Amino acid sequence: MLENLSQNKVHGGWHKQYSHSSDSVSCNMRFAIFLPPQTNESNPVPVIYWLSGLTCTDENFMQKAGAFKIAAELGVAIVAPDTSPRGENVADNDGYDLGQGAGFYVNATQAPWSNHYQMYDYVTRELPALIEQHFPVSKLKSVAGHSMGGHGALVVGLKNQTEYQSISAFSPIVNPMQCPWGQKAFSTYLGDNKEDWKQYDACELIKANDVELPILIDQGDADQFLIEQLKPENIASIAKQKGVNLELRMQPGYDHSYFFISSFIEEHIKFHCQYLK
Amino acid sequence: MLENLSQNKVHGGWHKQYSHSSDSVSCNMRFAIFLPPQTNESNPVPVIYWLSGLTCTDENFMQKAGAFKIAAELGVAIVAPDTSPRGENVADNDGYDLGQGAGFYVNATQAPWSNHYQMYDYVTRELPALIEQHFPVSKLKSVAGHSMGGHGALVVGLKNQTEYQSISAFSPIVNPMQCPWGQKAFSTYLGDNKEDWKQYDACELIKANDVELPILIDQGDADQFLIEQLKPENIASIAKQKGVNLELRMQPGYDHSYFFISSFIEEHIKFHCQYLK
Repeated sequence: MLENLSQNKVHGGWHKQYSHSSDSVSCNMRFAIFLPPQTNESNPVPVIYWLSGLTCTDENFMQKAGAFKIAAELGVAIVAPDTSPRGENVADNDGYDLGQGAGFYVNATQAPWSNHYQMYDYVTRELPALIEQHFPVSKLKSVAGHSMGGHGALVVGLKNQTEYQSISAFSPIVNPMQCPWGQKAFSTYLGDNKEDWKQYDACELIKANDVELPILIDQGDADQFLIEQLKPENIASIAKQKGVNLELRMQPGYDHSYFFISSFIEEHIKFHCQYLK
Repeated sequence: MLENLSQNKVHGGWHKQYSHSSDSVSCNMRFAIFLPPQTNESNPVPVIYWLSGLTCTDENFMQKAGAFKIAAELGVAIVAPDTSPRGENVADNDGYDLGQGAGFYVNATQAPWSNHYQMYDYVTRELPALIEQHFPVSKLKSVAGHSMGGHGALVVGLKNQTEYQSISAFSPIVNPMQCPWGQKAFSTYLGDNKEDWKQYDACELIKANDVELPILIDQGDADQFLIEQLKPENIASIAKQKGVNLELRMQPGYDHSYFFISSFIEEHIKFHCQYLK
């Protein structure tokens, strides 16, 4: 059911890639998992799910974030899924911000996307069930991500507050209904009725719900996408109005890259581990 | 003279890529530098030169090794050159282990390679002079590398013991004269006279010289290239005979990848910084 594609020992634990046939997205999906050295059947470890940004696969975070030293120390697993369904028969688009590599963690309702682009179900239901079935992990989980995946982490966590312990994001698209990336993806995957978009917009979700989960957001102030696409002030102001435990940290001089993520990932892993007990 | 190609803030310091026209290798060369936050004109920092392995560019180490947190803490710069001359007019070969991406840090003597493949001169002379001219660094330097670049680090350090303070390597080709990668490269770049090869073989250099520099080598015992190509026991036994301060650490379960490097790079940076004072 799971095909092991690679394994590498790292910081005393293991990085492994797997492929499996996914029911939610109706194609083969690849994911990667980091298992800390403490992992064994009698010591199930909690899991941080990492959702990546546009154009990424399961590999970007695992190769570039530098997260394993602290994850090994604290005894937490990390799972990184791919960012969309993929394959010859899967709908695609020439843009880097639509189609394969750009699933936006929604369940698409519009043809031809709805056939495969059910990434919300994949990430919230199928993948955690698969991980809990095949690896010695506990049911305790948190969710984190970058850019499109930061949007994904916020939406996944906010819509499933009893399932996750905490949310963190780097440079997230906090208000996709109000930026070009989000408007392009949502109109394509979800259609023109903006009421249908609100279930996948972190700012709208905070407006409409009581939020108990702690949220940490890091945003570089030299990020080229800051003003047009990311708009972190939108979520900060709504969170403040609603009394949500959300910390937005503007990081001076940092951009949108994995150099930024690697600079603060240790603090994010520590943040989640406070709640994964 | 130096063209800045990119810059990213990371761990409070800066990662920057540059291109320049190289006299030694007669083409444009690219390198990357990490400058720790302590760097300024009144506080020149020491430099670790990192030499990468087959197929790599200046980017692999900088993106995947996770070295910047400790380098920032300890205040050391890191410079990563490309692994060969490159360009349309530069000789090449279809193999991944010869030609562009596979310069082996030697000065080629055989046509057509000798036109550009003068990587030994580039790495030991031109690049350090350029770095010391353009960045606020001291003349204190150490050298490290991986696989082909571990061979490079050993050869560069052993042949220039007054220039470098220490040598370290991950999974180095310690005895290129006795393995397929080395024999292919040396016969192509240096010709058939094996006496000419000895100047670029770490084991032969230790045999022929007094060695004062401290050397640290990490080698994974699950490395697929261990037995045929790497042969760390060859350098360990010669070093022992000659009383060289060389520590070879066999690391159980680790392979040839950057997952291995990232697991122990902090210890290598600390090792060098002991001597960069």
